[in-house]
Amino acid sequence: MTGEVRQRMIDGAIALLATRGLEGTSFATVLARTGAPRGSVYHHFPGGKDELVAAAVERNLGRAIDLLDAAAGQSAVAVAEVFLSAWRALLTQTGFRAGCALVAVTVGTDSAAIRQQAADAFRTWRDHLAGLLEQGGLTRDAAQRHAALLLSASEGAVVISRALGDLGTFEAVATSLLDGIRRDLEASPG
Amino acid sequence: MTGEVRQRMIDGAIALLATRGLEGTSFATVLARTGAPRGSVYHHFPGGKDELVAAAVERNLGRAIDLLDAAAGQSAVAVAEVFLSAWRALLTQTGFRAGCALVAVTVGTDSAAIRQQAADAFRTWRDHLAGLLEQGGLTRDAAQRHAALLLSASEGAVVISRALGDLGTFEAVATSLLDGIRRDLEASPG
Repeated sequence: MTGEVRQRMIDGAIALLATRGLEGTSFATVLARTGAPRGSVYHHFPGGKDELVAAAVERNLGRAIDLLDAAAGQSAVAVAEVFLSAWRALLTQTGFRAGCALVAVTVGTDSAAIRQQAADAFRTWRDHLAGLLEQGGLTRDAAQRHAALLLSASEGAVVISRALGDLGTFEAVATSLLDGIRRDLEASPG
Repeated sequence: MTGEVRQRMIDGAIALLATRGLEGTSFATVLARTGAPRGSVYHHFPGGKDELVAAAVERNLGRAIDLLDAAAGQSAVAVAEVFLSAWRALLTQTGFRAGCALVAVTVGTDSAAIRQQAADAFRTWRDHLAGLLEQGGLTRDAAQRHAALLLSASEGAVVISRALGDLGTFEAVATSLLDGIRRDLEASPG
């Protein structure tokens, strides 16, 4: 039962980070959103807000990896399409109100430990994406290059699309990214 | 004189947005950073923090446009290099502590008016970049595509590089972006 409340609070923190940033993610807003009892805060997160944010970063990464793994063994284009579709769904399903919790943490934190955790998450995510792109037919070098570009360009396009409230920039970017992968797949020795 | 204090406060707000996000940008932190007298706040910004943030967004856009215009009339590759160099300089000169003030505003605000202003700034910036890329030899279609990708990928790479504290991801992304522009320049009818 206590585990369930803790999970719920972490999920609530991810959603708040994604929509309202680090400033909008407090124990008060997490309790209001999740209906968790007030006493849960120091029971489940004795380390305070940083501990909750750290748990949110970890869980958010886990979800991102699981989502990518749905395309494991498929072509690099299919891997990129799964990755891009998840961003598109996040934007449209939230009316362009949500973005990436990791970006919100990086941009908003002044804790070196939390920033380091965000760094580890970005690195793991990028490397996992590169691994799947390589399995999907790209050379190792091209896979690493496209993983860095896919992750960076999606993160930026999501922020810009949130501001603009439409998918125009996101779709232009997605088309360029997929074209680049297709071109390198055709050029690749396999 | 009062104009000078106002400008100083706006510059201070831009620097604070870039390094500490919207949460870290308050009249208190702006006054502490700039040494402006306490009475300046409601004299220069009767509309409160939103008015200061709006002025910071406007000035930040003006600077970004001026910076791009240094490459006006040059090749699309030179335009992209000027754009990328500015980001690289921001990261390295601040020890990876600063990013884009517009991203901080978009990710942190819950004001529809401020978000709309960020949207207008992103749109003007992207379109200005596209205009210079087209002047620099790309077709209109390719220029618009590359402008959206350059802006998105740089914004994302800057966030990730801030977290990681090194230029690795940024440089990988920059190389891909410049290669893409070179390829389209060679293919372009001019």
